[in-house]
This record gives sequence, structure tokens and C-alpha cells, in this order.
Amino acid sequence: MSIAELAQAAKTASIELAAVDTETKNKALAGIAKALQEKSAQIIAANREDLAKAKAENLAAPLLKRLKFDESKTADVVAGIESLIKLDDPVGKTLSAVELDEGLELYKVSCPIGVIGVIFESRPDALVQISTLCLKSGNAVLLKGGSEAAKTNAVLAKVISEASTKAGIPEGWIGLLETREDVATMLGLEEYIDLIVPRGSNEFVRHIMNNTNIPVLGHAEGLCHVYVESEADLDMAVKIVVDSKCQYVAVCNAVETLLVDKKIAGVFLPKVKTELEKQGVEIRGCEQTVGIIGGKKATEQDWTTEYLDKIISVKIVDGIDEAIEHINKYGSHHTDSIVTNNREKAERFMALVDSAGVFWNCSTRFSDGYRYGLGAEVGISTNKIHARGPVGLEGLLIYKWKLVGSGQVIEDYSRGDKTFTHRRLNKEYGL
Amino acid sequence: MSIAELAQAAKTASIELAAVDTETKNKALAGIAKALQEKSAQIIAANREDLAKAKAENLAAPLLKRLKFDESKTADVVAGIESLIKLDDPVGKTLSAVELDEGLELYKVSCPIGVIGVIFESRPDALVQISTLCLKSGNAVLLKGGSEAAKTNAVLAKVISEASTKAGIPEGWIGLLETREDVATMLGLEEYIDLIVPRGSNEFVRHIMNNTNIPVLGHAEGLCHVYVESEADLDMAVKIVVDSKCQYVAVCNAVETLLVDKKIAGVFLPKVKTELEKQGVEIRGCEQTVGIIGGKKATEQDWTTEYLDKIISVKIVDGIDEAIEHINKYGSHHTDSIVTNNREKAERFMALVDSAGVFWNCSTRFSDGYRYGLGAEVGISTNKIHARGPVGLEGLLIYKWKLVGSGQVIEDYSRGDKTFTHRRLNKEYGL
Repeated sequence: MSIAELAQAAKTASIELAAVDTETKNKALAGIAKALQEKSAQIIAANREDLAKAKAENLAAPLLKRLKFDESKTADVVAGIESLIKLDDPVGKTLSAVELDEGLELYKVSCPIGVIGVIFESRPDALVQISTLCLKSGNAVLLKGGSEAAKTNAVLAKVISEASTKAGIPEGWIGLLETREDVATMLGLEEYIDLIVPRGSNEFVRHIMNNTNIPVLGHAEGLCHVYVESEADLDMAVKIVVDSKCQYVAVCNAVETLLVDKKIAGVFLPKVKTELEKQGVEIRGCEQTVGIIGGKKATEQDWTTEYLDKIISVKIVDGIDEAIEHINKYGSHHTDSIVTNNREKAERFMALVDSAGVFWNCSTRFSDGYRYGLGAEVGISTNKIHARGPVGLEGLLIYKWKLVGSGQVIEDYSRGDKTFTHRRLNKEYGL
Repeated sequence: MSIAELAQAAKTASIELAAVDTETKNKALAGIAKALQEKSAQIIAANREDLAKAKAENLAAPLLKRLKFDESKTADVVAGIESLIKLDDPVGKTLSAVELDEGLELYKVSCPIGVIGVIFESRPDALVQISTLCLKSGNAVLLKGGSEAAKTNAVLAKVISEASTKAGIPEGWIGLLETREDVATMLGLEEYIDLIVPRGSNEFVRHIMNNTNIPVLGHAEGLCHVYVESEADLDMAVKIVVDSKCQYVAVCNAVETLLVDKKIAGVFLPKVKTELEKQGVEIRGCEQTVGIIGGKKATEQDWTTEYLDKIISVKIVDGIDEAIEHINKYGSHHTDSIVTNNREKAERFMALVDSAGVFWNCSTRFSDGYRYGLGAEVGISTNKIHARGPVGLEGLLIYKWKLVGSGQVIEDYSRGDKTFTHRRLNKEYGL
């Protein structure tokens, strides 16, 4: 099938899938879990081929680790599916119910978005997570994984497709793309695809965002800040900065720029410098910072650079408003944290910093769907519409308006023969 | 100021505006209402100039009527502002609250989107409605009205800007664009503008959607259907079709294509033909339709044409699934209605038709924010994300995640020294 045909098949399947009942979806999820266990040997064999090729091509060790799909990964994804089965069906929830007039009732009811296009990183377990999240929320999905995992992904997609259709899910609801050209084609298929979720490097996500008219849910950058305010507990601040920077440097919720209030810079900077250097972190400071602790000078470019490495830029600011302004100007609207004992200043920071996550006295690294308790995460969004921050199942849903009448026409209301009651109803939709 | 400067000023204002309290916003709204009354003579004088120019340029009578802004329009917009003041502040609502661990609480709190760019039709009262909706929801706004209303709009924007800043709203929150070139410039200002709401002709909205990377909320087309199912009450069906088509032909929620089940076509079509012809409606039928009631034959193009006129296309379908397929293929996902006495078929139709509004036994013309009881309407959206169908205030809001800690770092959870509690909290956010 061509990519357009694959997308059209997904669209067709999505229509029926939107109306599939909870029991069937859960039965299909259980079937997928069972099939993944039963076909484990086949999956692992395919994964060994991917791994061998990746090793031959000298893929870096952390990437090899992510690529690996063994018995323990099977157990992980099966556990994930089991918790997904236990979750409430998010489809068909009555979000509001209003009587417009006697015998004319309006219901706002949650429903799937339709067809989701997901482009994800090299972990093959992501394929299982994303496709089962889509299934639970009634969405069809087109998937493109890392090319390193091509053989593993092909087997996984086949196992999932077969097990789910056997349980009554419409055929074609899951489709696998194989090449970058396939992705380019997908970006033009507005007619069939309702939402793109790209996960991966900044440049890649930015490229996707700039090359499609389909809505995109995601984040290109994670340029996070910690602002150590003048009334901060300085020991707490050191601990938070070190954790935000060093706990895992290669992730989007790691801090890249440290803002320090000038009132405490003289005391705080030497303290934090010692601890950061213990961890091997390079500091690039503004002129005033360098004046206090020496070291390398930051350029304008440093304020907009997501290092994803053991490097941090440091700037001294004159009060909270300069900190807020800096973050809103240079940040990526992902996650920013203030350290202070002053409640009012914390409130101002959290109100005016225009980011998905605004934190007080804690590490930026908490910005994550699992840590937020959302269950499985679809992605992290820096969008200003639909869904923001870590996005769980609810990001894959929208609603429709169902109006149940008994012959009503507008002419009667327009002439004034009838009037609207607009009375809130305390009931769930159900014909 | 250049358009970029206007947009930048709006962005700056939007940051402070997001944190303005309810009392100040309501005071500003009251101030705007008062100023509109006090400066009524000035506004009407500007409107007379616009009207004189429009008459000289032979603007059609209905457009002249829409352009008029007199004492009665002033009273209308003032009444609108007064009901807006009474509404709950939609900003700062706690949407969820979870304890992640002792002393670490996560709140999902509603907030404004930021800067909204609205392009609207020739009615100057729309300027007042849109800007006050944005103010209530804490959003800055850039407005572009119809060029026929340029002088009226300029005075209205000035009155609103002055009255609101006097009441403490940050300067620059409202900006007026004047030309089509201004709009083209605005479409490129992603850095400052978070959402575009275009209202107007199909081609215009389509043009906007295809020429910006900024999210767009709206609908290009309203190609609505009525499906008269085999178990329909035929008298009710005639009434609904006539109302959906004729009550106001120039609107997006009027029906354009009538689908008739073949089982009842022979009886129903002559009935509906008689009534539609009484109203002067031209029927363009499929081959089978023409075989029964004669008349003009529809071409493939008719199924995708939004006439906005006294014309209706008619197609005979072989059962509900063909009706659903036709609607999903040719429709615009706006509003579609089924007429039937069969509950199960109605349910199938409402589940599988992929439209913002799916109606049973009532006119498509109910698809409207006022009729839905939403209060003022921002627009009607055929998007599949964020907001769908008639959009009230809630379409101008998003949320941020506020995490309140006491020094927590991820390392402790990663090492296993601490574990997440993920306990739902029954409380509102508030420091």
C-alpha cells in the first residue's frame, strides 16, 4: 500500500473505531499483551538483527541500550498494557448536558480525534505504548519509528495489528511507515490525518512543525531555567540546580540557564560553582558572574542554547521581573523553576512565566507525565492550545456536540413562538 | 507602530494581563460599557462616514445594515458587556490537584492563551464583543475588521483601549490592524501571536489556514447534511429540511445536501419538493432523484458545493452506512442531522458521522453558540483539536502546571529513597 492508501485506510478504520465499545477495546488490549508474550521469541529475533546491524554501524552504547527489546522489555510493555486496560474509557464521557427546550437536549461528549501520526525515537517499546494508547482512546495511528529498529518495529506492528483485529478492532487502524520520505508524504495528508505527534531531536520536531498544515503536538526545545531569588534557601537552591542540571543532562526538562538574583550572587555563586564543578559541569557566565567566580564568558547565543550536556549558562538579574522577562524572551515555554522563601514572589513568577510548567522550590526534572501521575505519556507539549506540558490520554481526545430533538426547527424560536430554556441537566448522554 | 511592534506590545501586555485579578477586569469591562455610552455620538458620527462611503460604493443593503452602528447597537453591546461581567472568571480555575509526595503538590490551573489575532466581518459590534471576550479571559488581541467599517472600528478600539487602561489593564493589550497587508504580516508573527480566529468567507478562511504556522480556530466551510432515514416521520422530515435550508440560506449551518433513504424516496421526495419549491428552492438531484421528481441533475461538484443560496442537492442512498460515508467524504465536519424514529440508527449516525455537531430529529440551524447557551461565541470550529463546534469563552483558555515544592529533587526518587504518592487533592490552587 502507498502511504496515502495506508492513511486512507486508517481514516476509514478510525470512523468505526470511534464507536467501538470499551469491552472490545479492552479485549483487544488483552489480546495484544498475550500475543506479545507468545511471539516474544520472534520479536527478540528481529531485534537481534537490528542490534547486529546497529553494532556494525557503530551506534553509540546508550542508543544500543534503548534499541534492545528483550524479555524484560516485553514484561514492561505487557505491564503497561495491563494498567491501560484498568483505566476508565476516556471516550463517550458527557462533558456537559443542557436542555435547550423541552424535548431538545444538547450533550457535549468526548470522542477520539481520529487519525494520529506519531514519529518516535529508536526505542521499539515506544511503538507498543503509543499504539495501545491510541487504541484505548479510539484513535487510528500511523507510526514511524527509528530506522535502526525497523525489523523489530515491523514485527511488533504486525503482532499488534493481528491481535487487535482478531478481537474486533477495524482493520487498518494501525499503519507503519518505513522511511523519511514516508514521513514527508504523511505531512501533506491533511485529508486523512488529524494530529501529528513528533518525538525526537529539536531540529527534527522544528522541521515537522514548519512543514505541515496538520496540527502538531509536541515541543521542539526544552530550554528550562532555575531562578534563585534573593530570599532563597541557598542550600536548597544548590541542591535544586545540581539536580536540574546533572541528574540526566540529555533530556528536555534539564536546566540550561541559571538566573541568580544580584542580591545573593556573591554568596550563592561560589557555593553552586563548587558543586557543579564536582559534577564536571562547565559554567558560562554573564559579565557580572565571571566577575565573581571567573570562568568562561557567555555570549548572547548561550541564552538560546539547549546544551543537553554538562554545560550551564549563568546570568545575574536585578530582581524577579528581569528574571521573568529573560525566561519569557529566551526560554522555550517548557518548564521553569523559582527558588525562594517569599510566597508572593513565587506567585508572581508562576503567574507571569509563560511556560507549560512553572515550579516553586523543586527541580525542573519533575516535568514528566509519569511523575505527574498521568499514566502513560503521549508527549510533552509547548503548544498554547489543546494540551500543554506532559500529555496523557486526554490529549488524544476531543468532543462532539450531540443534539437530540423531537422535530424542532429554528423558525419557531426566531418568530418567538418558542423560547430556549438553557437548563443544565444532571445526566449522562445515552439514547 | 508597525504591525510587528503592535504584536510585540500585545505579547508584553498579555503577560501582565494573564495575572490581572477578576475585580480589575470587571471594572475595566464596566468602564468600557460606560465609555461606549458616553462617546456614543462620536462613534455614530464615525459610523455615518463609513455608511456614506459604503453607499457611494453601492454596498448591498444587507451589508449596509450590518455595518450600521447606532444607539440600538450601542445598547446591545453594552448589554453584552454586562452579561460578560456577571460570568465567572474562567482564569485561575483548578482543573486538577495531585499530591506527588508530601510537600510536593501539582496543580493544573486554567490560564489565558496569550495573544489572539481575530479577523472579522463588517459588523463593528463584533469588535466590541471579541475584544471584551478576550479581556474577560485575560488575552491580548489584535483585531482586523472589514475595511468598510474602518472609521467606526478605529473609534471603538480607541474608546475600549482608553477605558480599559484607565481601569488598570496593561497598555497595548488591544491593537487594531487596518489593511490586508497588515493581516499578511500578522500571519508570520508566530513569535508573538498564539492563535488566529478568522471569521468570514470560505475562501478567506481557507487562505488564512494555508498561510500561517500559527494555530487557527475556525471553519472554512459549512457543508451540512440532513439524512432522512427510512423510519423517519416524513412530515417532521419535511419541516426539518425546509427549516435547515430556508430559514436563513446565507449561513454556515444551513443544509446544502439532502440524503434520502431509497426505501422512502418515492413517497418523501414529492412531498419535500412541493414545500421546497414553495420557498423558491432549486433542487439538483442524483439520477435516481431526477427519475422520481424530475428537475435538474446534480454533478459530482454539487456534493462539495456550499451554495449559501436557495439551492439544495439531493441524493438517494441505500441505507444509513451509505449516508454516513457520503457525509464523511463530502461534508465539512460542521453539522449533520438525521431524521428517524429508530433510536439505534440515530445512535449509529451520531457515533460515526465525524462532525462537530451530530443532530437527531432537529434542524441543522441550531448549531450556534447562543442557541447552545454558551453565551457569547468566539466562532465555530471544525478543528479536531482544542475546541470544536460553537466556541465560547473556554476556547480562549489553556492551562499551566504549577508545582509547589519544598526542595524536592528527582535524584531521591530515582535512587528509590522517596516514592511518589500521586494522591488526588480536593483543593483549589492558592499559595
